[in-house]
Amino acid sequence: MPANSMEELVSLCKRRGFIFQGSEIYGGLQGFYDYGPLGVELKNNIKAAWWRANVYERDDMEGLDSSIIMHRMVLRHSGHEATFSDPMVDNKKNNKRYRLDHLVKDQKADVIEKVAAGIGEDASNFPAVVAALIKQPAKASEVLKAAGVRDAFSGEVGDWTEPKPFNMMFKTTIGPVADEESYGYLRPETAQGIFTNFKNVVDSTSRRLPFGIAQIGKAFRNEITPRNFIFRVRELEQMEIEFFCVPGTDEDWHQHWLDKRLAWWEAQGIPRSKIEILDVPPEDLAHYSKRTYDLMYDYPTLGHEEIEGIANRSDYDLGSHTKSQSELNLVATVSENNDSIARLTIPHPDTNKPVVPFVIEPSAGVDRALLAVLSEAFTKETLENGNERIVLKFKPHLAPIKVAVIPLARNREEITTVAKAIKTELQGLGLGRVLYEDSGNIGKAYRRHDEVGTPYCVTVDFDTIGQNESGDAALKGTVTVRDRDTLAQERVKISELAGWIREKLR
Amino acid sequence: MPANSMEELVSLCKRRGFIFQGSEIYGGLQGFYDYGPLGVELKNNIKAAWWRANVYERDDMEGLDSSIIMHRMVLRHSGHEATFSDPMVDNKKNNKRYRLDHLVKDQKADVIEKVAAGIGEDASNFPAVVAALIKQPAKASEVLKAAGVRDAFSGEVGDWTEPKPFNMMFKTTIGPVADEESYGYLRPETAQGIFTNFKNVVDSTSRRLPFGIAQIGKAFRNEITPRNFIFRVRELEQMEIEFFCVPGTDEDWHQHWLDKRLAWWEAQGIPRSKIEILDVPPEDLAHYSKRTYDLMYDYPTLGHEEIEGIANRSDYDLGSHTKSQSELNLVATVSENNDSIARLTIPHPDTNKPVVPFVIEPSAGVDRALLAVLSEAFTKETLENGNERIVLKFKPHLAPIKVAVIPLARNREEITTVAKAIKTELQGLGLGRVLYEDSGNIGKAYRRHDEVGTPYCVTVDFDTIGQNESGDAALKGTVTVRDRDTLAQERVKISELAGWIREKLR
Repeated sequence: MPANSMEELVSLCKRRGFIFQGSEIYGGLQGFYDYGPLGVELKNNIKAAWWRANVYERDDMEGLDSSIIMHRMVLRHSGHEATFSDPMVDNKKNNKRYRLDHLVKDQKADVIEKVAAGIGEDASNFPAVVAALIKQPAKASEVLKAAGVRDAFSGEVGDWTEPKPFNMMFKTTIGPVADEESYGYLRPETAQGIFTNFKNVVDSTSRRLPFGIAQIGKAFRNEITPRNFIFRVRELEQMEIEFFCVPGTDEDWHQHWLDKRLAWWEAQGIPRSKIEILDVPPEDLAHYSKRTYDLMYDYPTLGHEEIEGIANRSDYDLGSHTKSQSELNLVATVSENNDSIARLTIPHPDTNKPVVPFVIEPSAGVDRALLAVLSEAFTKETLENGNERIVLKFKPHLAPIKVAVIPLARNREEITTVAKAIKTELQGLGLGRVLYEDSGNIGKAYRRHDEVGTPYCVTVDFDTIGQNESGDAALKGTVTVRDRDTLAQERVKISELAGWIREKLR
Repeated sequence: MPANSMEELVSLCKRRGFIFQGSEIYGGLQGFYDYGPLGVELKNNIKAAWWRANVYERDDMEGLDSSIIMHRMVLRHSGHEATFSDPMVDNKKNNKRYRLDHLVKDQKADVIEKVAAGIGEDASNFPAVVAALIKQPAKASEVLKAAGVRDAFSGEVGDWTEPKPFNMMFKTTIGPVADEESYGYLRPETAQGIFTNFKNVVDSTSRRLPFGIAQIGKAFRNEITPRNFIFRVRELEQMEIEFFCVPGTDEDWHQHWLDKRLAWWEAQGIPRSKIEILDVPPEDLAHYSKRTYDLMYDYPTLGHEEIEGIANRSDYDLGSHTKSQSELNLVATVSENNDSIARLTIPHPDTNKPVVPFVIEPSAGVDRALLAVLSEAFTKETLENGNERIVLKFKPHLAPIKVAVIPLARNREEITTVAKAIKTELQGLGLGRVLYEDSGNIGKAYRRHDEVGTPYCVTVDFDTIGQNESGDAALKGTVTVRDRDTLAQERVKISELAGWIREKLR
């Protein structure tokens, strides 16, 4: 039973140390978030699961970690300087700026109806309404005003300008001289670092087609209106694969990756039934795409939103970044490139002639994955005694804390010594974080570890050290292990505990 | 026998896919590097070893992953807006700009002598020479010219301006409106994200003093003259701990962390004898520091350079970022803060009265660590047959590839099936990357895996599948395991291989 609303999640995330607002003590910075003690573990576990499945467990993949700041030429030839923009409108009354589609979407239904009618489209086809507004900017300005589109900041109907494109890349000056050429961009996607290193990877690994390059890292998008918690942010993290294949085999590989990625999401606890596959209509495709499947996860409150895009980018990217374009029989329409110093080809496996491969790109967001995993794990249960509990039913490999080791009395050295030794032993299994937990009483500790999704709590008590006078002497050398999901408590011998835990968390 | 020169390392790094120049196909971007297929694994292994030792294996530590772009107020109150700068001079003849100390250091000995004499300092105390030049800018300009300081770009004596400070933070506009207040900084150190989240972490984890917060992440410094490969770069990665303790216990904790960190470096293969501890003289301390130990590793070509700084930052940072400063009996001299909305105190463990803790900060560079680890692992050996080999003798937990599984014939399905099954089994041990290696003949594969430091190569041959007619039938079901360091080859039963490898790589 996943979370009912985004609010429930946001509140839990802050309270338990998963996610905080960025720069919060200075009033916060919109679109930036910090991952707390549990958030960083959950995020790292998701990234590790992705790397394991996509790099380690395959034989046709290499990893990469390229820099965030890139040469302006990379983003020029990738097409981002020209096209990576969102339409914005200003309210002349207060100089507030909005992303056009967000502005309209946030209006009341009758206002949206009026906007749609004004621009000659049907309100039920929202993307078409936005597209029409962008295509006729002068008319759009009139329509927005006439329909009574309100400014959320002032609450009043705005005096709206014509929509114009706003480039979403963050720019910064590199080096001590601020002249016309001394700037670079924070990458808007990790993908470009893969394309620019294509030749380096081929040369240093002797890879032949087909093979892929995988990368996890930060990307930056200067969103006009960041929103929906960590869903639409300005600093994000991506898990991207660029899979290079022989032209003509691209559609089969596209299907291969669609299947693989759906299976991966399921293994992270996202049921297949919660993901809709959107076969993006040709008119909505990005400039580089031959075909794209968007995986749309059903988020609480937000509804179906993109959690991963799997695009067939044809030979657009390598073709855009290569020199000698005219000699390479490119299929994609690319802009002229007189800046690249590298020829981005690879021998065709059959003919050995140089070819620019096609690319399949499964591109997932780490933050969006984390939000989905949290949402699916979130469970509110009524216990037999009538009490309610919140429990995060993470798959064990994703749980931020694998085991909490709790000394029943934090000032009894006989007990704490045993508890610490158990913590050290379990930590040594290399399964992830094991916590020595002595911050409260046992009931509070169980409640806390339910709420953060710790699969097992191990309690060291007076029975363990043979000092429970009314206890059972046979319990000496055993601990209580409590199961997060079933609430069952079991006595396990300390000598068998490591094996027991390893088996359960496998 | 570590590397003799930086050049040897740079060449190996490029050839074998550890490190490439950033944005290389567009001529490269100075101070930015991309980590290739092996570099990303080595880097991840170093980070994991640090996280394990400093978060998982301790009971007084929490992790964090805060955003890179931060509110300008964070970097104002941290002191970075005012003081995070390097002195630069311009050559009026060609408008080239240099970092003052780098410019002077790169001159011939007699020129440096003349500069020192001109500014009234001894050339043997280089930092004093630079300090004097900065203190007397007008005179400095004259001295540089008179001493004949040359511009490396033009090769001629320059017409040098007065030195002036250059702030090294990267700045960028946030949001769609570029006005005076709409900018932020790329963090110059991860530390500030820890300080600004101090209260969030305390509130969500119930930590009491002493405890620490650890973070790994990118930081950005707009170096005037990036240099020395990945040693001085503009985009770097840090591993930082801020350890919060009761004032008065700070010196003991400082010693504790010095010992712990030296032991950690040793466990990564950096011998204690290669690190000098520099007890930074009071006049050279950063503005926040009560005392600092710099760990200086003896890099090839570069000599002793900082690999980690361990600073006692007193109560400067939390004191700078807190509201109500005047009520908190701060020891450090801080600037007034009317922007923070949080009181950064924690109850004193004895008195329960609110106190601003002292901070010990062990701060290490991931890239510098990687360069040191690579350098120590690098070994050139003459074999018994007179051949020379290069081998990277990484500690097994750091090796980018743990095991290479090599089918002796890549087109014989009986062999490749067995090899792939072994790869899958060994990968499942969760020890790191296991590579299915079929890109060349066995000799080439061994040579390659020596050069990238793979501890074990497992070869599946005709004996393995019982099809070596002149072979020993008893070898069926066994594989050859070759040891990177000893070159010894051993036949191991496939059924015992996983256990054998796990034991060796422990």
